[in-house]
Amino acid sequence: MAPHPFKILSIEETRLARDVILSLHPDVVVDFREIFLNEPNKELMKKYLEAEHTAQPGQSAHSKRPPRLAKCMYDVIGSDKVPQYHESLVDVDTSKRVKHEVVGKDQQASLTLWEFEHLVQACNESEEFQQAIKEFHLPEGFELVIEPWPYGGRDDTTETTRYFQGLCFGQDTRSGNPDSNFYAYPLPIIPVMDAHTKKICRVDRLATGGKGDSLAGKTHSPRVLEHCQPAEYVPELVEGGTRKDMKPINITQPEGTSFKVSDDSFVEWQKWSFRVSFNPREGAVLHDVRYEGRSIIYRLSISEMSVPYADARAPFHRKQAFDFGDGGAGNCANNLSLGCDCLGVIKYFDAVIVGSDGEPKEHPNVICLHEQDNGIGWKHTNWRSGRAVVTRMRELVVQFIITLANYEYVFAYKLDTAGGITLEVRATGIVSTVNIDPGKTSEYGNVVSGGVLAQNHQHIFAARLDPAIDGHNNTLLYEESHTAPWDKETNPNGNFYEVRKTVVNRSQGLDAAPEHNRTFKIINPSRQNKHSGNPVGYKFQPPATQKLLAAPGSLQYQRALFAQHHVWATKYREDELYAAGRYTLQSHVERGGVHDMAARKDDITNEDLVVWSVFGLTHNPRVEDWPVMPSEIFQLHFKPSDFFERNPAIDVPSSRNQASVLANECCEGGQKL
Amino acid sequence: MAPHPFKILSIEETRLARDVILSLHPDVVVDFREIFLNEPNKELMKKYLEAEHTAQPGQSAHSKRPPRLAKCMYDVIGSDKVPQYHESLVDVDTSKRVKHEVVGKDQQASLTLWEFEHLVQACNESEEFQQAIKEFHLPEGFELVIEPWPYGGRDDTTETTRYFQGLCFGQDTRSGNPDSNFYAYPLPIIPVMDAHTKKICRVDRLATGGKGDSLAGKTHSPRVLEHCQPAEYVPELVEGGTRKDMKPINITQPEGTSFKVSDDSFVEWQKWSFRVSFNPREGAVLHDVRYEGRSIIYRLSISEMSVPYADARAPFHRKQAFDFGDGGAGNCANNLSLGCDCLGVIKYFDAVIVGSDGEPKEHPNVICLHEQDNGIGWKHTNWRSGRAVVTRMRELVVQFIITLANYEYVFAYKLDTAGGITLEVRATGIVSTVNIDPGKTSEYGNVVSGGVLAQNHQHIFAARLDPAIDGHNNTLLYEESHTAPWDKETNPNGNFYEVRKTVVNRSQGLDAAPEHNRTFKIINPSRQNKHSGNPVGYKFQPPATQKLLAAPGSLQYQRALFAQHHVWATKYREDELYAAGRYTLQSHVERGGVHDMAARKDDITNEDLVVWSVFGLTHNPRVEDWPVMPSEIFQLHFKPSDFFERNPAIDVPSSRNQASVLANECCEGGQKL
Repeated sequence: MAPHPFKILSIEETRLARDVILSLHPDVVVDFREIFLNEPNKELMKKYLEAEHTAQPGQSAHSKRPPRLAKCMYDVIGSDKVPQYHESLVDVDTSKRVKHEVVGKDQQASLTLWEFEHLVQACNESEEFQQAIKEFHLPEGFELVIEPWPYGGRDDTTETTRYFQGLCFGQDTRSGNPDSNFYAYPLPIIPVMDAHTKKICRVDRLATGGKGDSLAGKTHSPRVLEHCQPAEYVPELVEGGTRKDMKPINITQPEGTSFKVSDDSFVEWQKWSFRVSFNPREGAVLHDVRYEGRSIIYRLSISEMSVPYADARAPFHRKQAFDFGDGGAGNCANNLSLGCDCLGVIKYFDAVIVGSDGEPKEHPNVICLHEQDNGIGWKHTNWRSGRAVVTRMRELVVQFIITLANYEYVFAYKLDTAGGITLEVRATGIVSTVNIDPGKTSEYGNVVSGGVLAQNHQHIFAARLDPAIDGHNNTLLYEESHTAPWDKETNPNGNFYEVRKTVVNRSQGLDAAPEHNRTFKIINPSRQNKHSGNPVGYKFQPPATQKLLAAPGSLQYQRALFAQHHVWATKYREDELYAAGRYTLQSHVERGGVHDMAARKDDITNEDLVVWSVFGLTHNPRVEDWPVMPSEIFQLHFKPSDFFERNPAIDVPSSRNQASVLANECCEGGQKL
Repeated sequence: MAPHPFKILSIEETRLARDVILSLHPDVVVDFREIFLNEPNKELMKKYLEAEHTAQPGQSAHSKRPPRLAKCMYDVIGSDKVPQYHESLVDVDTSKRVKHEVVGKDQQASLTLWEFEHLVQACNESEEFQQAIKEFHLPEGFELVIEPWPYGGRDDTTETTRYFQGLCFGQDTRSGNPDSNFYAYPLPIIPVMDAHTKKICRVDRLATGGKGDSLAGKTHSPRVLEHCQPAEYVPELVEGGTRKDMKPINITQPEGTSFKVSDDSFVEWQKWSFRVSFNPREGAVLHDVRYEGRSIIYRLSISEMSVPYADARAPFHRKQAFDFGDGGAGNCANNLSLGCDCLGVIKYFDAVIVGSDGEPKEHPNVICLHEQDNGIGWKHTNWRSGRAVVTRMRELVVQFIITLANYEYVFAYKLDTAGGITLEVRATGIVSTVNIDPGKTSEYGNVVSGGVLAQNHQHIFAARLDPAIDGHNNTLLYEESHTAPWDKETNPNGNFYEVRKTVVNRSQGLDAAPEHNRTFKIINPSRQNKHSGNPVGYKFQPPATQKLLAAPGSLQYQRALFAQHHVWATKYREDELYAAGRYTLQSHVERGGVHDMAARKDDITNEDLVVWSVFGLTHNPRVEDWPVMPSEIFQLHFKPSDFFERNPAIDVPSSRNQASVLANECCEGGQKL
């Protein structure tokens, strides 16, 4: 039985693709970066899905299966020792390469974690860096920690050298605990490595001044860590110990789960069905999301995020991570842990990753799936009879978590019993810190601990929604509510407000307008709701979060043009998955991202369109964000809008939960009330 | 032991107050409306709390206890039979009346549920109404249901008659089920009652037209219910039955709760403490909210909500409920039910209500209290060691639910382990419906089922926050982030953004500005955070929800002036608890609400100030909101901002939950994966 077209490549398929590539590049060194599924061509896939969902017993959609393709990304290093970056597609059914591209020097491949290791090695071997670090007096028992980072945007647009940089910290090793928090001891120095030569080519010095000091002022003393203070988060080191009075909350499903997973990828739950996949760049992706067999979404993903920092002092203008394009969210995914990352009855999914030799291995527990209760779903009490009918809102959660050096992000797709889909992002982890002189404060951030400046920054996310509302030909419109003018005929009492609909005819960027209750609807203009007569659809209100603040023309602005609008509507094209374009590492301008897609001004009415939602957080850190930041939670809600013929949760049982107890009757050994 | 000053009146205290009032009004009929605690004078209470929180063992704050006052609201009906509305304060320690006020005829007392019963009776006795209803042909087995409503705003500002109106529906009685959903069969007729004479004084006829029909057109036929369809929600009647495959999720606390409740009102949980009370108008209120003994909030409440409807046809401009001021959220509170309204280990609180004879009785289970898990609280993985530390976010939830005819609202105060306080509102229940002719659609709403027009409307809420950030003298400011201009000296790379602070010097209304990331901070200007040097504070971002849409000068606009701004800042005064003023029933303009309070332009820097947050929902109904609407959820987050010296949740244990299991290992009798 051949794998389903949306299923990730198996270890065997991955290895086969690797072998094909190696056989095509003899006599050179091939350093692999990624091998993963190149998702099937959408036109072919539409036919496959149609056959799959209308198949009679005994029939199969298999005859319509699109070719199974592996995307292979690798450096080829010939006798000149200069690595050349290649991308190939390998058909794993036929063991043939079907596409091959040598990427120009002006585009940088995404980084791999082993490139980071080269940086640490290069620092150890660099005399310039070793001399520089000696200028600092590290306290007794402290060791140097180098945290590799992408270089950020290129100031010089003609520059093609591949760079990495390192943020430097001291770590207190006196406890012998390798998890002592080094971010509390930032050193004002950044080594820069040429990734080709693997040599440190420059050491940048950082200012440590505050308000009133000049931008370039390197004001720190050699004893730059002496005014820093411990800020531990691992329980055995945390100051004051951990609290003892938090009693466990247990979540159990004694009759089992309400979901069913088959083929390691196909999920069925409460009239919903979808496929889940995982790739190195985007992490978990949902495909072919349906409710009672009716199509809603073809593909749902988190496409990109950018994190620009606002410190005006060079080189901090380059501090701008693109955590999906630069290094890959999937690559940075945590191996999730039972009873920690989610509670209850959990199903985990594994992925496959490759090393630089292309050898695949399992990346275990990268996605977790579970059901959860989210409070009251709907309730009504008939005051005449006194009878209350109350149902719970049940959610199915597909979650993955990524760690990017100091920060972590928790991403979740939540499907619910009312036909809603929520995209949730939690930002947590440790804020990025730099050293600041004793007693000073800064307009670039907040002093969260002695010597530690947490710089102001933004997190801007882009979600990509490829809708298929009862089919692929959809239209986007937005609906606004406006005060109507007084009018004797139409508004004699002044209470009428007008609901205005505007169809988005052409691909473009659009903004949130909460003052008009602007609500975007993706409709199928060919299908009407039988009650309302409106076209069937799904709606969302783009969160009106602040857009990117960097000035027009700045590197940060140019690199993240996607962050200039809350919503983008584009016409579907193959291989257009990434909001900030395919290559973000060391970019100086967004190329091939949504800004370019929208600029085509394609007709997108009754078409195969894609909708992008951009939202974020301007994060001017609080002291409470230190040393590990409490989750900041964002939610984007897609809700049916005349898609169904009634509340789809109206048939959720209103049964009383038998495990709930009164507080004064619970508690073996616990607190009696 | 005397009751704590924030504790609600006991049954005994309530009865004592009643008896005092009756003794002072001999030879007349006294019809009681409410008797409840008149909260202690704040100046006295500040002294009491200071003594309470600094008391040495053996000492008590009791000597500083403010007088215990009962607010008594009642009609006095003398020989002229004309009810006169009185409000009195009775000192229940001394059994003396200490204040007495006869409220003028231009203000209407809040309604009581027994006034509603008079309406049904009056309809039965009204020949005009009985004649009118006979014009309609009710299908076989249908009965008339009259749903009493407040009258809404007065068109005539000099009018002092107290009115009630009734919305009329047919109920299908053929199933014999008293909970068959009558809102699916709206009748186009509204009887209006004079509350003094208890007679129907007018019968309003409703238009049933659609787009293109004139406002006044009464286009319906006598067989007005024949194109309506059943829309049942009680499980035994719901079409297709309830789903069978939803397995239970159980939430248990085998070691007991982490909270402790004493004195029926004092709650301690995870370094938090507060008092909870309940009153007929606002429902649950939190008092004296502290963290590790440090004061944060003096009083937190939901103050008001207004629900204006946008149908231009008279008399729908009067359709505008003030659910707190008109009838009292506390009066409409549900008796909550174990395992339905919340899961897990639950503590309930009771309240006291009075009948028209003033006789008090218990109003059981009006508030529920429980702990819940809210996902990942914070997480960090040290990529060098591979060690992940992950903690859960724990919340303590104080919840109450109200039913207002067709609608319900679930209100919750949630305190969390990261020092945050979230106010959550869920709107659910049944949308308000009117009849629409077969085949028509309307610009006033959406046809959600045959013959049923769900009218467009708004829900606008006002929360009242009386802060006490490390004491009562606080200042409000807002902080915005702005793109900085390019400048060689200060912004050479264009990435700097400026954080601007603006102090709110005078009482006023202010708005959300998400485009500038406008964040309000309530600070104590006399206390500095030791790390950042900033004043200690709490912050919130007002949700930028749409404001009231009715045209300036309209009844709806005038009655809800509070809905003109997202945030109001006022100086504290005794007895200023209500955003839309003390008397909303049948009002024609907001009087004594936040608009008036703000107009005083009081100096509010380093003062005892009050902050009001106004937020809402423009609800243009979907078919999916029918027959019972899935909860729409709003959250308002108050978060510490340099109030603490680190993340207050940093000491939450990261213990693995032992009850969590793999999906393929769970499931006795359940679904194996």
